[in-house]
Amino acid sequence: MLYARTSAKTPIRFDLSGLPRELHLFPPVTSVIFVRFNYAVTQSVTDWQICYHPSGSPEIAEIEVNGILYKATYPHLLIKRPGDKLRSERGEGQSLYFKYAPETSLELPDDLVLQGLTPSPAISRLSGELQSELEHVFVPGSADRIDRLCMSLLSEFLLAMRSYPPECRQRTRIREAASYLYAHPMAYFSRLDDLARKFGFSRRNFARLWRAEFGTSPGRSLKELRFGEACRLLSSTDLTISEIATQLGYSEATNFVAAFRQYAHCTPRAYRLKYRA
Amino acid sequence: MLYARTSAKTPIRFDLSGLPRELHLFPPVTSVIFVRFNYAVTQSVTDWQICYHPSGSPEIAEIEVNGILYKATYPHLLIKRPGDKLRSERGEGQSLYFKYAPETSLELPDDLVLQGLTPSPAISRLSGELQSELEHVFVPGSADRIDRLCMSLLSEFLLAMRSYPPECRQRTRIREAASYLYAHPMAYFSRLDDLARKFGFSRRNFARLWRAEFGTSPGRSLKELRFGEACRLLSSTDLTISEIATQLGYSEATNFVAAFRQYAHCTPRAYRLKYRA
Repeated sequence: MLYARTSAKTPIRFDLSGLPRELHLFPPVTSVIFVRFNYAVTQSVTDWQICYHPSGSPEIAEIEVNGILYKATYPHLLIKRPGDKLRSERGEGQSLYFKYAPETSLELPDDLVLQGLTPSPAISRLSGELQSELEHVFVPGSADRIDRLCMSLLSEFLLAMRSYPPECRQRTRIREAASYLYAHPMAYFSRLDDLARKFGFSRRNFARLWRAEFGTSPGRSLKELRFGEACRLLSSTDLTISEIATQLGYSEATNFVAAFRQYAHCTPRAYRLKYRA
Repeated sequence: MLYARTSAKTPIRFDLSGLPRELHLFPPVTSVIFVRFNYAVTQSVTDWQICYHPSGSPEIAEIEVNGILYKATYPHLLIKRPGDKLRSERGEGQSLYFKYAPETSLELPDDLVLQGLTPSPAISRLSGELQSELEHVFVPGSADRIDRLCMSLLSEFLLAMRSYPPECRQRTRIREAASYLYAHPMAYFSRLDDLARKFGFSRRNFARLWRAEFGTSPGRSLKELRFGEACRLLSSTDLTISEIATQLGYSEATNFVAAFRQYAHCTPRAYRLKYRA
């Protein structure tokens, strides 16, 4: 998957340090390498190396870094820091890695050396994009895209290391429901029960888990969302009060005005006069 | 295109500052907004705002920043910095923008305020990804992805501003050819004429433009590439000398050995002994 366009014997190695960059928003990568390795390594590391090993043998990779032995199955991530001394047993496998200059500031946990990770669609996609970009490496702006893709990959590698225990699944589902509510507030302005059902919760369980996750009831969250939107529409648009009421799902503007007064302790009109930009 | 999943009246506004982040490799974005604006603005800016306006009216946007009037057609980019005072005429249009905290370090050119840009496929793709990610904003890791997408977008906005004059087209094509050579070195180890033809150059023009761009002849570049690869294979793999010769496109190992001696002033075997890790 990572190597679709590369035969095992044709490693891709790019020295990017000499290429022109147009922008400087990411730490500049010095080289990118896709390679099949099949040898033992004794290495004095001189730069940062972010190594992703999607597969290899033997099944358990053993790598000694600064005298400490680390073990991991594939796929895994190996972070090599400037000054590290590495020794590994004979093995073979695939490797995608990229390097940063020793003086680059990468804030990574100190205890992150060799760690198994879960392959993710984002990692495959970004690896593919990186390979495509390497086909245009001399074109202006390409080195910047490569910098960005490498930083994104590093970010996804780190995410893929966190494994969430099964008891977190309900929490994830509650957070998915919250995401949905915030992305589609109009659809749920008056139907929280539908939202609970859509994500497979009973009304009661939904309220309990929501409170545990966000420290407030789903109804309260919805109110904040609805009146936050009302405040924004009042202060930064020309919409009339009754247009705003309609947008927020009120059939009668007077109901909106009453609810708004209760929430904001002033009328919509007074709010608009006070905060209109 | 940017607004596929949003009606004109349903702006997407996300406050990300309270969301949990798993990683810290990018400057944390504080909010992301997709909105249709239709009002005049007088604004005291309190944070960094990276604003992309894909379309709008009137045709030429006029914005006064700190007393200086800037004009641009659509699409354009508007960078608002903490402390800026903005005034704009009444207008309407679409806006995608994201904010960073005032203390965020963004190294942008000082003279970059309002500037027209060429829409690019990368911008559309990243905008789409950003919108998808906003559907899962409460899921762990999502805020990090949003940070990364926003930085990538900023990077693409800046790239889209550079317009390369027509006389650069040949340079771009030469750089495309160089990229191709480096990505597929095996395919062209002995056929530079094919490479020139593939990218629409006569052999002579190809050599002339290559020299102007890279300061060396294409033959010399190819030699560096070929023997750089030979050195790597010798020092870091178990392949035999004749296997390496075959990989580099030599029909006879002795020819490879002779050429290598001329290049590196030692035999392949001596090189391997000296540099083998």
